[in-house]
Amino acid sequence: MRILGIDPGLAIVGFGFVDKEGHKLTPVQYGCIQTEAHTPEEERLLHVYEGMGQLIDKYKPDAVAIEKLFFARNVTTALPVAQARGVTILAAVQRGLPVSEYTPMMVKQAVVGYGKAEKRQVQEMVKLLLKLSAIPKPDDVADALAVAVCHAHSSSLNSKLNEVLRK
Amino acid sequence: MRILGIDPGLAIVGFGFVDKEGHKLTPVQYGCIQTEAHTPEEERLLHVYEGMGQLIDKYKPDAVAIEKLFFARNVTTALPVAQARGVTILAAVQRGLPVSEYTPMMVKQAVVGYGKAEKRQVQEMVKLLLKLSAIPKPDDVADALAVAVCHAHSSSLNSKLNEVLRK
Repeated sequence: MRILGIDPGLAIVGFGFVDKEGHKLTPVQYGCIQTEAHTPEEERLLHVYEGMGQLIDKYKPDAVAIEKLFFARNVTTALPVAQARGVTILAAVQRGLPVSEYTPMMVKQAVVGYGKAEKRQVQEMVKLLLKLSAIPKPDDVADALAVAVCHAHSSSLNSKLNEVLRK
Repeated sequence: MRILGIDPGLAIVGFGFVDKEGHKLTPVQYGCIQTEAHTPEEERLLHVYEGMGQLIDKYKPDAVAIEKLFFARNVTTALPVAQARGVTILAAVQRGLPVSEYTPMMVKQAVVGYGKAEKRQVQEMVKLLLKLSAIPKPDDVADALAVAVCHAHSSSLNSKLNEVLRK
């Protein structure tokens, strides 16, 4: 199964394609889509949408996992990011892909085993689990891979649970 | 010039197509796209996006005017609406349409002449200006028509200003 993990954003959208075979996780491709700050918002949305569509068409994931937005305070920052998240999800659902959402805490729990882990710990675990030579930069890329790993672990748990329930 | 006014949302997206010839405003079509509460978010986004695309293709506006989101407090409510606003804008920009944004205060100022006007006053003015027999329901439809009227007034002002500047 190929998972596309996404750390949503308007300026930077992190993405990470990870293959899962049994317990083995292999990174396929990762990076980020970037949009320029001083261009009209609608053009940036189009850029994110088209970039995501091209990536999905090229790397053909089976499932998409995307981080849930969490903004305790700053709504002004939250709205443009949410708009970009909308077009990102759209690119996936138009291609018939299942989209799963994970909160930052769920990602930390799944990757490090502790929901309040530090960002650095998550990044180190991502590097370790995916056998990367370095932590991917910027943070958005590492975050996207973490969401993909989280989904891989969650889907393993779910299928085990289903097996138990079927018995 | 045909203007498409939009009141963005996830559950209800209000839309209003208004033709502007000189000072004359004529409503062409108005209504709303609705999505069901208990369906997955990604399907609702797809529904909004496809619905908006079909309307634009059918009524062929020259310009799109959309209300800016304003949420002082509730971020939880704001995020799904912002996501839906993202796919709404996308449908317009993919078709090469210029997208203008107006705050609720700008809309009130343009329609009633007073930025802190009551909702009811705005609706009555929309009814009057567009010669409607009743205030359109739900409120989202009246709001969408108000944004279209706001854009019509603003674009008149802008073209006058350009004329003056050219002299």
